Amino acid sequence: MSIIKKIGIIGLGTVGEATLASIKKQCSLIEKRTAIKLKVVKVCDARREKSRLADKYSVSFSNDPYDIINSNDIDIVVELIGGIEPARTYILKSLKRGKNVVTANKALLARHSKQIFGVARKLNKSIGFEASVCGAIPLIQIISRGLVGCKVRKLYGILNGTTNYILYMMAKRKMSFASALKEAQDKGFAEKKPNFDIEGIDALHKLSILSYLCFGAWPSLENIHVEGISKVSLLDIIYAAELSYTIKLIAIARRDKNRLDLRVHPALIPYEHPLAQVNLAFNAVWLDAYPAGELLFYGEGAGGVPTSSSVISDIVNISLAKPSFIQERRGIKFINIGNIINRYYIRFMAKDRPGVLSRISKILASLDISIASVTQKERKEKNFVPIVMVTHQAKEGNIQKAISRIDKLSVIRGPSQVIRIENL
Amino acid sequence: MSIIKKIGIIGLGTVGEATLASIKKQCSLIEKRTAIKLKVVKVCDARREKSRLADKYSVSFSNDPYDIINSNDIDIVVELIGGIEPARTYILKSLKRGKNVVTANKALLARHSKQIFGVARKLNKSIGFEASVCGAIPLIQIISRGLVGCKVRKLYGILNGTTNYILYMMAKRKMSFASALKEAQDKGFAEKKPNFDIEGIDALHKLSILSYLCFGAWPSLENIHVEGISKVSLLDIIYAAELSYTIKLIAIARRDKNRLDLRVHPALIPYEHPLAQVNLAFNAVWLDAYPAGELLFYGEGAGGVPTSSSVISDIVNISLAKPSFIQERRGIKFINIGNIINRYYIRFMAKDRPGVLSRISKILASLDISIASVTQKERKEKNFVPIVMVTHQAKEGNIQKAISRIDKLSVIRGPSQVIRIENL
Repeated sequence: MSIIKKIGIIGLGTVGEATLASIKKQCSLIEKRTAIKLKVVKVCDARREKSRLADKYSVSFSNDPYDIINSNDIDIVVELIGGIEPARTYILKSLKRGKNVVTANKALLARHSKQIFGVARKLNKSIGFEASVCGAIPLIQIISRGLVGCKVRKLYGILNGTTNYILYMMAKRKMSFASALKEAQDKGFAEKKPNFDIEGIDALHKLSILSYLCFGAWPSLENIHVEGISKVSLLDIIYAAELSYTIKLIAIARRDKNRLDLRVHPALIPYEHPLAQVNLAFNAVWLDAYPAGELLFYGEGAGGVPTSSSVISDIVNISLAKPSFIQERRGIKFINIGNIINRYYIRFMAKDRPGVLSRISKILASLDISIASVTQKERKEKNFVPIVMVTHQAKEGNIQKAISRIDKLSVIRGPSQVIRIENL
Repeated sequence: MSIIKKIGIIGLGTVGEATLASIKKQCSLIEKRTAIKLKVVKVCDARREKSRLADKYSVSFSNDPYDIINSNDIDIVVELIGGIEPARTYILKSLKRGKNVVTANKALLARHSKQIFGVARKLNKSIGFEASVCGAIPLIQIISRGLVGCKVRKLYGILNGTTNYILYMMAKRKMSFASALKEAQDKGFAEKKPNFDIEGIDALHKLSILSYLCFGAWPSLENIHVEGISKVSLLDIIYAAELSYTIKLIAIARRDKNRLDLRVHPALIPYEHPLAQVNLAFNAVWLDAYPAGELLFYGEGAGGVPTSSSVISDIVNISLAKPSFIQERRGIKFINIGNIINRYYIRFMAKDRPGVLSRISKILASLDISIASVTQKERKEKNFVPIVMVTHQAKEGNIQKAISRIDKLSVIRGPSQVIRIENL
């Protein structure tokens, strides 16, 4: 005998509609596999025209989310409206009305997880959030169940499809950032107002959720170093390729005992590393865990249909298991970006005259930065030539100091470009 | 309050010892995460000298597996001896004595799963087999839980580390098969008697388990087409590279309604596909599922320490959930290799004289095989020159017929090389 689980969906955007459609299509397969019968009983959206979707799938429609939240006929509330409010209130009220909750809302979890998980834990209700990180990749299931015995040492993720698509097109077609962004917008891979993706905020929210999953530690977002890709130029992509690297927007979490190094920024990734091969708008997470070793998980990072797979997986797994929560850890310190040790790609635009290189090297040497390679490029821009330098391991704080001094030299046209090299 | 789970391990080989060590190292982390305290109470191995390992980890040792199987003090029996018997008997007796079982034994599951799962189901006991496929990649958890709402349409896997290492070294260092095998043996990536890996049997066992996971269908091993890599020559790897392909040993499962196409053989994979980038002895599974889309999972396929991650994951997940079984499906037909449609790479060794190509093409045309490209290579071997052909889509049965006719021509030195091109 199957158990029927009654579902209410709040928000019929791309993911909401796809979830409705996927449940209809897949529910008999799911019932065969798990003896759980999923039934969407009500959907809700503030936009009245969305009632047509409800009609199409023969589900009851409402404009008022409280018709779902307060219903005695619903077991699981699926929140897919995004944003902080009113999503937070809907989730909290749903928990208090005895529902389990599934959400794809990374921005909300990154900011108010303590409150939301706290209430759920107290009421012994589940929060499913598989769809909040890396779309269709069942990463939360993988880390919390598949790798339950593992300690994650390093995690490097391509968590944002928009920026990966733009960097991929720049490299593949030798396009400028602006043209690649335009193409991404035309093809639906970037929003009209793309800053949230481009500047790394979306990746930051996902990294924060991964930090909770892997280390039991929610960082305060303000303390994580975040750089987007708008300053990455085609020139840098070409020079990186000459050095056998690909530039990707990478979210990093590295653990060193009780110190955690979290950051989001463009990075040079060695060409033969599997992350360097993640193309188009795909997402991937590479991690090094003990005892499992190196792992990579790759898939669609966004889009309604792929993401609906994760929403459904949450609904089923919540129905199969008791609520469980990741133990929060105290005493974890977050490393300030100034203290990290890295190798750096630096591109100066310098006047083509004798003595420039010696002035640059002197400043670098005074800050303990040693140079692994220097190439002066042929291409000239208004009397300035690019000088591309790769450093040995150096302290980020010293690099920043050096660049700020070098950029004050009259022979340099700043700001100089600095991109971290991650050898993983 | 934590729940204590008492474990007995039968078999202290590489995986057994690593599991013992990993549980010791990770048990406090696991307890924090799940409130389950893992305790290995007894280990067993037929080799008396293994008692030293038991001493090292302060665990009780026995030569007699029935000290574990019949113990009232053990909840979970971990079978890590491999092979069919006595492993099968130990597992069945453990189930009957009320234990849950964890095993890494792919050969046993591929042959006797119906009996083993049947007994477990009847007794409401769990069988964990995460470690039986792709070492450290939590693939069983991913497919059965993370993708619980998905229908797998295609699966392509690099499931055997030994063969992947050999093919990788051949390509990377332009080595012959024999030298690459020797190196793999020296480095511990291949057994002294390597046939089981080299001829694709190990990959076949894993594919059979994946078929059960994805489609609920256990194939009979005898009906699956299996080709190993011993006939792949460096020449083919070089010519494939010129056509922008990499040769990999691939396990394939494709579903077309109720027909299932399962096979293991070397295949040409397009260079830009993520599977083509799986190097050294790594394993990876790429799949196309609805609604999730394209996914890839990558990690260590063997080795004691990585594999212990999967054994531990099984132990914990069995402790957290009730037994669940994949619903077996009836009415699935397995497609005979002769009926598949594919593109083919064919290398003929032909006498360098006029008219040869026309005789070959005539035979191909008579069997509805059309040619996409032909290249005659410069390299000559005793008056025979390699002719490399790529076909359009053709029926496997026709290709086999054509090759057998062509190989009878006096101008051809057979057997000609045929490798399937998988465009995924």
